[in-house]
Amino acid sequence: MFTSHVQPRFSETDALGHINNRALSVWFEEARTPIFRIFNPELSYKFWNLILARVEVDFVRQIFHGREVEIRTGIQKIGNTSCVVAHEAFQDGQLVSKCLAILIHFDYQTQKAAPIPDDIRLVLSKHPIQAHGDAKQKE
Amino acid sequence: MFTSHVQPRFSETDALGHINNRALSVWFEEARTPIFRIFNPELSYKFWNLILARVEVDFVRQIFHGREVEIRTGIQKIGNTSCVVAHEAFQDGQLVSKCLAILIHFDYQTQKAAPIPDDIRLVLSKHPIQAHGDAKQKE
Amino acid sequence: MFTSHVQPRFSETDALGHINNRALSVWFEEARTPIFRIFNPELSYKFWNLILARVEVDFVRQIFHGREVEIRTGIQKIGNTSCVVAHEAFQDGQLVSKCLAILIHFDYQTQKAAPIPDDIRLVLSKHPIQAHGDAKQKE
Amino acid sequence: MFTSHVQPRFSETDALGHINNRALSVWFEEARTPIFRIFNPELSYKFWNLILARVEVDFVRQIFHGREVEIRTGIQKIGNTSCVVAHEAFQDGQLVSKCLAILIHFDYQTQKAAPIPDDIRLVLSKHPIQAHGDAKQKE
Repeated sequence: MFTSHVQPRFSETDALGHINNRALSVWFEEARTPIFRIFNPELSYKFWNLILARVEVDFVRQIFHGREVEIRTGIQKIGNTSCVVAHEAFQDGQLVSKCLAILIHFDYQTQKAAPIPDDIRLVLSKHPIQAHGDAKQKE
Repeated sequence: MFTSHVQPRFSETDALGHINNRALSVWFEEARTPIFRIFNPELSYKFWNLILARVEVDFVRQIFHGREVEIRTGIQKIGNTSCVVAHEAFQDGQLVSKCLAILIHFDYQTQKAAPIPDDIRLVLSKHPIQAHGDAKQKE
Repeated sequence: MFTSHVQPRFSETDALGHINNRALSVWFEEARTPIFRIFNPELSYKFWNLILARVEVDFVRQIFHGREVEIRTGIQKIGNTSCVVAHEAFQDGQLVSKCLAILIHFDYQTQKAAPIPDDIRLVLSKHPIQAHGDAKQKE
Repeated sequence: MFTSHVQPRFSETDALGHINNRALSVWFEEARTPIFRIFNPELSYKFWNLILARVEVDFVRQIFHGREVEIRTGIQKIGNTSCVVAHEAFQDGQLVSKCLAILIHFDYQTQKAAPIPDDIRLVLSKHPIQAHGDAKQKE
């Protein structure tokens, strides 16, 4: 599991006085950086080999400016050509949001999904997300 | 069904040369404005009575800067205290993204979900989204 | 002079209840699209030949969600390798913001500023911004 | 002088492969947080007493994703009702952007600019920005 931290920005608040939902898709994308590096160690745009196919985001509690958010990220499932990344975000020790993101391993030359190589599959398998996240997802 | 149009912005592209996924959550939120107005005609922040509980977004095709996107928005389901808004985004006549958003009717005074009043329920029921969207959702 | 229109987005508000200043830099960049096309008709990223060197933005009045903003854009000055683009933004008929942006014509191969060709210079000169904007700039 | 650090986000890149200029206005606003706290220790939205009147941003060098940016922030000038905040951003030890932001001390009740109280003025005066930034500003 990977852990990262975000300082919610004033410019991410909206007129309702809390963090706007759009910030979450940005934070979760950023939290996937270590996953991107497993597929593309240099984060080379030229050799990018992933496509985001789907995200599901649950907004569990309001998130506020001025207090750090912790994001836990891990692999929930590894398929033939895709994997499911799970995220949980916490503020003040409470779960505030959860996300599942489906990434497809993609060959831009043939414009087709490509099987995830065994060496990458092995590294992914070493970064599962804890049971806590899984259970929440079933709520 | 409501139809709106978006000009993808240069600042919404990313280094991969197409529109970054975060733009979709912003566009779909904006496309929900007529739904917000059904619950809150003046869009008063003080009397805001909705919470976004969950979004699911499918990224079906790459979206490019410089060509208009059409967004179709309607109500897919009306529950006791919540409703499901469905969106479909098209560019160059092709489906590029779909979204489901769960909105909860919320009483900020009691801090609890509140039943959707009958008059609002009636208006919502007049804006279903076409079968096309529904079918896609089942893919 | 070019005129464009923007619908301020809910996600562009901040916790103070009006549009956050960051939205202006995005709107003004978008309003420069016709200028970009004079230099690069297809807006090809591969043949991009401009660099933004500087912006000055005056925030004259609060801007609100829910009411259209009109942006007027024109060329204020043409130098040897650069030009100054001026913008004015209006909401409800009132000036709400002004901007000057300095664009440099740039040769990415030699990594140097390059003189603006005469044919482009001629087209630029046909899109001055009205005196109104100029006068305001002197305030 | 205040120092803060930003991790440029993938979602802040644009199709030209570097960080889009809009990110700078967000980063610099965030870097003003300690200045906001001098005027409004709790960052209370209800008692907010500042208005951003103007920003000037110089884009000195391209900024890239994946490498930290350091932002130095200080007070360049204190007027009767306003102050000028200066920022410098560095990546890989090189100056990449500079910014001046004019903040007005504002009384929302009377809707007028208000003199900066002496105690605040004293604290502001203890956070000048180094000569380096000043000199650059004169280029």
